[in-house]
Amino acid sequence: MAAHLDLVLERTLDAPVDLVWKAYTDPEHLKQWFAPKPYQISECELDLRPGGIFRIRMVGPDGFDTGHGNAGCVLEVVERERLTWTSALGPDYRPAEMGEGCESFPMTAIVTFADAGNGKTSYKAVALHKDTADCDNHQKMGFQDGWGTVADQLADYARTLGVSA
Amino acid sequence: MAAHLDLVLERTLDAPVDLVWKAYTDPEHLKQWFAPKPYQISECELDLRPGGIFRIRMVGPDGFDTGHGNAGCVLEVVERERLTWTSALGPDYRPAEMGEGCESFPMTAIVTFADAGNGKTSYKAVALHKDTADCDNHQKMGFQDGWGTVADQLADYARTLGVSA
Repeated sequence: MAAHLDLVLERTLDAPVDLVWKAYTDPEHLKQWFAPKPYQISECELDLRPGGIFRIRMVGPDGFDTGHGNAGCVLEVVERERLTWTSALGPDYRPAEMGEGCESFPMTAIVTFADAGNGKTSYKAVALHKDTADCDNHQKMGFQDGWGTVADQLADYARTLGVSA
Repeated sequence: MAAHLDLVLERTLDAPVDLVWKAYTDPEHLKQWFAPKPYQISECELDLRPGGIFRIRMVGPDGFDTGHGNAGCVLEVVERERLTWTSALGPDYRPAEMGEGCESFPMTAIVTFADAGNGKTSYKAVALHKDTADCDNHQKMGFQDGWGTVADQLADYARTLGVSA
């Protein structure tokens, strides 16, 4: 961990770890919470294996639209513990072309989950950047607000999976 | 496979697959053949696990020197079958800064090995690029000659491991 190159979001989520994992790793579930409302995920592909595609298309009420959404790549899958993916590579590890906005710089996300007891989950998301310029840029784009908001949405959504199960 | 984005080198190597694998995956062995002579590998780090570092420093009689050598990342390790690594990421999956020359564009290499019988190995190295410009550029840098030469050096070196074993 190189602190000046990383952005970190930590939360205790009020939902059990198995439901949080389920909400994060099933593309139909992920669509429901991954964009900070009123933004929405209009398309999502997630193939949960190293080398698998991770692609989202985000749209907003202000006309914001990531277009086809640049395809990223899953790197690590440790059931209920860790999911690592990157925008530096596309599916099957091909180097990725960068897009615009949040997709204009390569990033790797390491997301870890742990049982915090009492039906809660320790959640940590770390965004790794290649240099301080990208890291600062991502911070100014509102990393803490954005990733914090969707962490809350993740917890809210994961709890509904428990009710319906 | 997207043909116009990939460069492919295939060879039948005159050395058994277990020795070829050993020569490719031990950094002390890899130093001996990975640069097309008279170029040399002066430093090599290879941590043979997904997320592990892959770094080489290449030097030449003409003063060519990749400096500290940009650190790449191992992605897949399938014993005696496949090794995948990329220069788009550094160790532990952090997006990598690009360097100069052969290190000026991100690339993923998928190298596969198979027993071809009679003590020979089917060897295939595919270089994946993000776009046709990088692919064409890599080709013009002499991909076929360079990777072909080191494939021959790999076979020659791997055979010496059989003698000393």
